[in-house]
Amino acid sequence: MNLNQLGHQAREAFFVISRTDSLTRQRAVNVIADELEAGFDQVRSANDKDIRQGQENRLSEAMIDRLTLNESRLSGLVADLRSLAALPDPIGTLFDERTLPNGLKLSRRRVPLGVLGVIYESRPNVTIDVAALAVKTGNTVILRGGKETMHSNRILVAIIQAALRSIDLPEECVQFVDNPDRKLVGEMLRLNEYIDVIVPRGGNSLHQFCRKNSTIPVITGGIGVCHLYVDVDADLEAALPLIHNAKTQRPSVCNALDTLLVHESIAAEFLPRVVETLVADGVSFRADPSAAALLDHPEVQPAGLDDFDTEWLSLVLGLKVVPDLESALDHIHKHSTHHSDGILTSNQDHADRFVDAVDSAAVYINASTRFTDGGQFGLGAEVAVSTQRLHARGPMGLPELTTYKWVVRGDYTIRE
Amino acid sequence: MNLNQLGHQAREAFFVISRTDSLTRQRAVNVIADELEAGFDQVRSANDKDIRQGQENRLSEAMIDRLTLNESRLSGLVADLRSLAALPDPIGTLFDERTLPNGLKLSRRRVPLGVLGVIYESRPNVTIDVAALAVKTGNTVILRGGKETMHSNRILVAIIQAALRSIDLPEECVQFVDNPDRKLVGEMLRLNEYIDVIVPRGGNSLHQFCRKNSTIPVITGGIGVCHLYVDVDADLEAALPLIHNAKTQRPSVCNALDTLLVHESIAAEFLPRVVETLVADGVSFRADPSAAALLDHPEVQPAGLDDFDTEWLSLVLGLKVVPDLESALDHIHKHSTHHSDGILTSNQDHADRFVDAVDSAAVYINASTRFTDGGQFGLGAEVAVSTQRLHARGPMGLPELTTYKWVVRGDYTIRE
Repeated sequence: MNLNQLGHQAREAFFVISRTDSLTRQRAVNVIADELEAGFDQVRSANDKDIRQGQENRLSEAMIDRLTLNESRLSGLVADLRSLAALPDPIGTLFDERTLPNGLKLSRRRVPLGVLGVIYESRPNVTIDVAALAVKTGNTVILRGGKETMHSNRILVAIIQAALRSIDLPEECVQFVDNPDRKLVGEMLRLNEYIDVIVPRGGNSLHQFCRKNSTIPVITGGIGVCHLYVDVDADLEAALPLIHNAKTQRPSVCNALDTLLVHESIAAEFLPRVVETLVADGVSFRADPSAAALLDHPEVQPAGLDDFDTEWLSLVLGLKVVPDLESALDHIHKHSTHHSDGILTSNQDHADRFVDAVDSAAVYINASTRFTDGGQFGLGAEVAVSTQRLHARGPMGLPELTTYKWVVRGDYTIRE
Repeated sequence: MNLNQLGHQAREAFFVISRTDSLTRQRAVNVIADELEAGFDQVRSANDKDIRQGQENRLSEAMIDRLTLNESRLSGLVADLRSLAALPDPIGTLFDERTLPNGLKLSRRRVPLGVLGVIYESRPNVTIDVAALAVKTGNTVILRGGKETMHSNRILVAIIQAALRSIDLPEECVQFVDNPDRKLVGEMLRLNEYIDVIVPRGGNSLHQFCRKNSTIPVITGGIGVCHLYVDVDADLEAALPLIHNAKTQRPSVCNALDTLLVHESIAAEFLPRVVETLVADGVSFRADPSAAALLDHPEVQPAGLDDFDTEWLSLVLGLKVVPDLESALDHIHKHSTHHSDGILTSNQDHADRFVDAVDSAAVYINASTRFTDGGQFGLGAEVAVSTQRLHARGPMGLPELTTYKWVVRGDYTIRE
C-alpha cells in the first residue's frame, strides 16, 4: 500500500471533481444510493464475515452492534443519501461582494475544500456517509476504517467507486487504505503534501493520537463533558424533564449531559427530585460533598477525583452544588471540553452572562444539550462535531466542507 | 525559557481578554500606539544595536534595511495602530440567525480565535502589527522573532506589555520567546495543548519547516508564483501597463508577477513590446523555446528547468507562448502556488472559464496581481496571506482572526 500514490491520485481526482457542476455531484450521490440499494446482499454477506470475526475475537455486544449493517440500517443509509443529494449545493455561491473605490469588483466564491483524510473506528456507515458528503461538495477523500469492519468497508468502497465510474467521475475521488496495519495511520497523518485536513471519527484516544502525530490540520471533536447549570431563577417543573432528556435520551453520545450544577438556594428542594426522576430510568449519580449531603439514596455515590472530567457515555450523572452563577462558570471553565454547555434560568441577565462567558462550540439557554447535531441544527447532514477552533466549530454541515477563493474583476486596473 | 509555562499563561490571559468589550480592546491598541510613540528613543537605541550587530555579522544591505526602524517607519507604525484601533470589531456579531420548527432560536456568534503562535524573521514591525491585531480581536499571542532583531523585539514587547498593564489587561496577552535557540521553534510547534494556530511570516523554508514539524494547524502562505495569461482577445494597449505594474511596482513581494503566458496568435506582435516596455525598468526575462524564438534581446535568456517554478522576488519574468486557454490553465495547474493568478481578456466566456478552473486564493480578470493584500482588498489590516485551504484563504483581516460559537435559546426545549 503506497500512501503517497493514494495522495497523488486523490489530488488529481480533486482537480476533476472540484470543477464539476452541481447536478453532476447530485447525480453521483444518487447513483451511489442506487448501487448501494442494488448491493444489499453483497454488503450483508461481507458484513456477516465481520460480525463472525468479531464474535470469534470476543468483541462486546455493543461493538458487534456498532459494526452491524442490517437491512433496516442499510435502507436508512440509502434514504439519507437521497436526502443528501437533494440538499442545496454550497459550491459556487458568492459572499462579501463589493466594488472598491478603484472600480475593482471583489467577491468570495465558495469552492471545495480539497482532499479529506478521515480516520474512523468501527461503524461502517461512516464509509458511505463521509464518501457521499465529500462527493456532494466536490471534495475527494482517503478513508481509513477500523480492522473490525475491513470486509464491509471493502465492498462499500467498491460500490461507491463503481457508481463514480458509471458516471465518468474518477474512482479515486473515494479511496480506502485497504490494510489494517496501524503504522499506516501514522504515515497518513504526515501526507501534508496531499491531504488538506484530517477528520478523526472515534474516541478520545484517536483524536489525541491524530493531534499529536499529524502535520496536517486536524478537526478534533466529538468529545463532550457537557454541563447544565440550574440557576436560582429556573423553572424547576420544566427543568426536570429537560435534564431527563439531556441525560437519558441517548446516553452513549457526546452531547449527552455529564454534570449537573445546581444553585445552592434550590439544591435542597431540587436535587432529590432530580435523583427520583432519573433513577427511574436507571441513572446513578456521583455527587460532590455538598450535593451528597442533601441526598440519601443508594444510587448516589461520592464523586471521585476525575469524575467531573469524565465523559460518561452512559447512565451516570455528576452532581454539584454551587453558591452562584460565577462559581458555575468557574467549574465549566475548568472541566468543559467546549462541546455543549447550558444554563436553565428565567433571568435574562444571567442567561446573557452565561452565553458571554462560556466558550463552548454550542451554548444553550433553556434547552437540552442533545441538540448539538447537524440534523437537529437544520444543516441536513453532518461530517463531524468540531470542538477545536479553526475553520469550523460545532456541527459541520456542507458549507464547512468548503473554502473560498477571491474573485477580482477589473478594467485593466493597476495598483497605484 | 519554559514554553509550557508561556502556553499556560497565554491560555489564562485568553480567558480574560476574550471576554473584554470592544471599547477596552480598542483602547488597548490606542494605548500601545501612545506608549510606542513615547518610546521612540528607546526603540531606536535598541534597534541601533541590532543594526550594528547585523553589520558586524555582514548581513546584506537588504537585510539591514528590513530590520531598521527609523523615525518615519515608527511614525507609520503608530499611525497604522490608530487606524487599526478604529476598525469595526468583528467580535460579538451574529450570523446565520434562524428559528427552527421546534422553536429553538439558533445563531452563530463571532468570538476570538484563541492563542496564536507567530513565527517570523527579520522585520521587527511584525512584533507590533501582530500583537495589536491579536489584542484588537481578543486573542493572545506568543511571538517568536528572529535573532537579528532580538534587541528591538525585546523593547517592543516591553512597551506592549506596559501598555496592557496600564489598562489592567494581563501582560501575558502578548508574550515573546526571548531566546534565539532554534530548538525552541520546534518545541513551540508542538504546544498543541495551548496554541490554536501557527502563523509563519517569512520565506518558503520557514513555511515548510512549520508544516512538517507542527502538531498545531499552520496557516501557510505568502509564497506566490503568480501568473498572468494574455488571451487572444485581450486589449493589448491596456495590457502593457498592467503587466508592467504587476512585475515592477514592488518586485520583492509575493503578489508580484512571475510568469507571463501569451496566446500564440498575438505572441509575435505582443512579446517584443512587453520586453521593450519592461527592459526600460531593469527587467530581464526567461523564455520558453517558442517565446525565445520570437525575441532577440540580450535580456532574454532561455528558461531553465526550474524557472517556471521560481518565485522571482526580483526583476525577472518568465515568458511562455501557449496555443490556447486550456494550455494556459494546464501550465497554471502545474506551476501555480495558488496565490494570485489572472487572465487578461475581453472574452467573457474565457474569463468565466478561467475563474472556474484556476484554484488560487485570488483569481483576477483584467487586473494586476499586486492587489492581493489586506489593505488593497479593503480589509483595513492583514495578518498574513494564506495559500492553504483551511479556515482562511488569501488576505486575512480581522474576521479571519475569529471563530464562532453556536448560541441556542429554547423554552425548556427537549429533543424528541
